[in-house]
Amino acid sequence: MGDEVIEIGARLATESARYAAMGWMRGTSGNLSEVLSRDPLRLVVTASGGDKGELTEHDAVVVDEHGIAVDGGKPSAEAGLHARIASVSGAGAVVHVHALAPVLAAERWPDGVVLRDLEMLKGFGRAAHDDVVTIPVIGNGQDMTVLGDAFERGFRADTPALLVARHGVYVWGEDLLEARHRLECLEWLLRFATATSMNVVEGSA
Amino acid sequence: MGDEVIEIGARLATESARYAAMGWMRGTSGNLSEVLSRDPLRLVVTASGGDKGELTEHDAVVVDEHGIAVDGGKPSAEAGLHARIASVSGAGAVVHVHALAPVLAAERWPDGVVLRDLEMLKGFGRAAHDDVVTIPVIGNGQDMTVLGDAFERGFRADTPALLVARHGVYVWGEDLLEARHRLECLEWLLRFATATSMNVVEGSA
Amino acid sequence: MGDEVIEIGARLATESARYAAMGWMRGTSGNLSEVLSRDPLRLVVTASGGDKGELTEHDAVVVDEHGIAVDGGKPSAEAGLHARIASVSGAGAVVHVHALAPVLAAERWPDGVVLRDLEMLKGFGRAAHDDVVTIPVIGNGQDMTVLGDAFERGFRADTPALLVARHGVYVWGEDLLEARHRLECLEWLLRFATATSMNVVEGSA
Amino acid sequence: MGDEVIEIGARLATESARYAAMGWMRGTSGNLSEVLSRDPLRLVVTASGGDKGELTEHDAVVVDEHGIAVDGGKPSAEAGLHARIASVSGAGAVVHVHALAPVLAAERWPDGVVLRDLEMLKGFGRAAHDDVVTIPVIGNGQDMTVLGDAFERGFRADTPALLVARHGVYVWGEDLLEARHRLECLEWLLRFATATSMNVVEGSA
Repeated sequence: MGDEVIEIGARLATESARYAAMGWMRGTSGNLSEVLSRDPLRLVVTASGGDKGELTEHDAVVVDEHGIAVDGGKPSAEAGLHARIASVSGAGAVVHVHALAPVLAAERWPDGVVLRDLEMLKGFGRAAHDDVVTIPVIGNGQDMTVLGDAFERGFRADTPALLVARHGVYVWGEDLLEARHRLECLEWLLRFATATSMNVVEGSA
Repeated sequence: MGDEVIEIGARLATESARYAAMGWMRGTSGNLSEVLSRDPLRLVVTASGGDKGELTEHDAVVVDEHGIAVDGGKPSAEAGLHARIASVSGAGAVVHVHALAPVLAAERWPDGVVLRDLEMLKGFGRAAHDDVVTIPVIGNGQDMTVLGDAFERGFRADTPALLVARHGVYVWGEDLLEARHRLECLEWLLRFATATSMNVVEGSA
Repeated sequence: MGDEVIEIGARLATESARYAAMGWMRGTSGNLSEVLSRDPLRLVVTASGGDKGELTEHDAVVVDEHGIAVDGGKPSAEAGLHARIASVSGAGAVVHVHALAPVLAAERWPDGVVLRDLEMLKGFGRAAHDDVVTIPVIGNGQDMTVLGDAFERGFRADTPALLVARHGVYVWGEDLLEARHRLECLEWLLRFATATSMNVVEGSA
Repeated sequence: MGDEVIEIGARLATESARYAAMGWMRGTSGNLSEVLSRDPLRLVVTASGGDKGELTEHDAVVVDEHGIAVDGGKPSAEAGLHARIASVSGAGAVVHVHALAPVLAAERWPDGVVLRDLEMLKGFGRAAHDDVVTIPVIGNGQDMTVLGDAFERGFRADTPALLVARHGVYVWGEDLLEARHRLECLEWLLRFATATSMNVVEGSA
C-alpha cells in the first residue's frame, strides 16, 4: 500500500478504537472510510473481520466506486454503500457504527425520525429552531446496490445521515472528525427522542 | 495571550476532556469558563468548534461582559450567557454541558424541576432535608441577551444551576472544581428524578 | 500520621478513585473506611470535602467509635455510622457510595428490598437458592446516632449491607476487597430488581 | 504449571480484565476457559474467588472433562459446565459472564429468546435475514451435571450461546477472540430485544 493509504489506515484504526471503546463497534461490527481520490472514486475502508478496537494502519483496503477492492484485501461487504454515499453526497469520510440508540429509533419510527427544536441539531449541521430534520430510515439488506438505491431516493444534501433498520447508522462529513461530531450529536438526539418516547415534533415547544 | 490566560486555558482543556470522556460534551458541544477579572469583567472561555476532548491550553478566548472577544479568537456564541451568569451570581467558573438527564428533566418539568429530601442536594450546596430546591428551566434560543434576561428573572443566589430546555445545563461555583462537584451532584439528582418518573416533591418521604 | 495510617490512606485513595471512575462517588460524595484497631475501636476514614477521584494517602482521618477525629483532620459526618457498623458487625472495612440503583431500589421498596434465587447473591455472601435476603432500608438523616440505632435494629450478621433512602448504600466486609465484591454484586442485584420492576420474590422461579 | 498453561492463563487474565472493565464480571463473578487438549479433554479455567480485573497468568487451573482440577488449584464450580460445553460443541474457548441484558432477557423469555432479522446476528455466526435464532434458556442450579444435561438437550451446533436464568450467559467459539465477538454481538441483540420490550419475531419487519 502507498504511504497515503497507510496514513489513512492509521487514522481509521485510531478512530475505530475510539468508537469501539464507546461500545459502538461491538464484535467486528461497523466500518469507516475516507475518500482517497475523486476521479476515479477510490476509498480506503477498514478491512473486514477484525476487532475494531485492535486494527492497525495496515487493516485497510482501497475500493472503487462499487466497493470492490482494487489491490487485493477483503473490504467489508458494506464498502459498496460507503462508496455510494461518498459519491452522491460528496463527503470525504463515512462512518458506520452499531450504536443502539439509532437502531431503537429506526424501530420506533420506521418511516423516518423527525427531529426539531433541539440545540444538538446545530452539531449535526442544521438549525436549532424551526428546522424540521428527518433522518431517513431504509430497510436492511445484503445487496449494497439495493441499499444504495434506497439511500439515494431519500438523500438530501442537508441531512448527512442514514438509518438502516435493525442494523445501524451511517453518518458522513468532510473528514473523519466532522463525521464523528455529527454522529455523536445525532446519537445524543436519538437517545433523547427514544427516551422521551414520542415523536419530538408532536412534543416540541 | 498572557501567562494567566494560558494557565486558565490549560485548566479548561483538562476539565473539558474530563467531561467529554463522560459523554457530556459530545461533538463540539458545551463550553467552560473562568473569570479572569471582575472590574472590568473578563472571562476566559473555551474556543468554539473544537472537539472538547482534544482542546489545548491555547483553545481559549478572553471575552468581555457581553461575551465579545477582546483580543481576537472565536468564542462560543454562548459566551454571553457565561458572562451574564458570572456577573449576576458572582461565580468564578461556569460550566455548560449537554448531559442527557438535565434535558430530559427539563422536558418533563418545563416550569422548573423541584428537588427535596435527597442527600445529594448537599453536594449542590443545599440542605438534605426540608429544603425545596427548584432548578429553573428557560426556553432555548440563540439570542444570549434574551436567555440572560430569562436566567436573571429566575435567579436565586442559593441555586447555582440553570436548565435550558431541549439544550443543556449551566452550573457555576467559586472555581471549576466546585462547579464540577455541583454539576455531578445535580446530574445524579436529575437522573434520580427522571428514573422515578414523578416530581420528587410529590413522592418525597 | 503513622505509617500504618498512611498505608491505609493510600488504599482508601486508590479504592475511592476506582469507585469515582465508575460514577459511584460523584461530586465529593461517599466515604470509605478501614478499621485500624479494635480495642479501642479506631477507624481510618476518607477526609471530607475532597474529589473522590483525586484523594492522596494523606486525605484520611483517624476516628474513634463515635466517628470523632482523634488527631485532628475533618472526617466525613458519616464517620460515626462507619464506626457503628464496624463495631456492630465486626467488619474490617466499610464502603459507602452513591450508586444510583440502590437509591432507586430503596425508593421502590422502602420497607426493605427482598432478593432471592439469584446467582449473584453468592457474591454477596448468601446462597443462590431458597435463601430470602432482605436488604434493610432506613430513612435518611444527619444524626448518625439516630441512623446507627436504625441500622442496629435491622442488623443481621448475614446481611452486610444497608440502604439509606434517598441517599446511598453501605456495604462492609473483612477488608476493602471483600466489601468491593459484595458492593458490586449487590449493585448488580439491585439493577436487576429495579429493571424487572417487580419485587423479585413475587417473580422468582 | 507448564509454559502453555501459563500462556493461556495470561490470555485469560487479559480477557477477564477487559470484561471486568465493561462491568460484565462484577465482584468475582464469571469465568473463562480455553481448551488445552482434546484427548483427553483438558481445559485451562480461571481460578475461583479472585477479582476478575486483577488476575495474573498464574490464576488459572487445569481441569478434566468433569471440571475437576488435575494438578491442584481451585477451579470455579462452573468449570464442569465449561468442560461439558467444550466437549459437546467442539469449541476451543468458553466465556461466562454476568452481563445484565442476558439475564433480563432470560427473565422476559424463560422458554428461549427468539431473535431474527437483525444484522448483528451475523456477528453471532448466523444470517441477518429469515434465520430464526433461539437462544436457549435453562434454569439456574449448583449441580453442573444437571445444568450440563439441560444444556445438551437444547444444544444446536449453530447456536453458540446458553442463557442461565437469574444467573448469566455462556458463549463459545474457536478461540477467545471469536467467543468475545459472539458475546458482544449477542449482548447487543439482547439489549435491543429487551429495550424494544417485545419478542422480536412478532415485531420483525
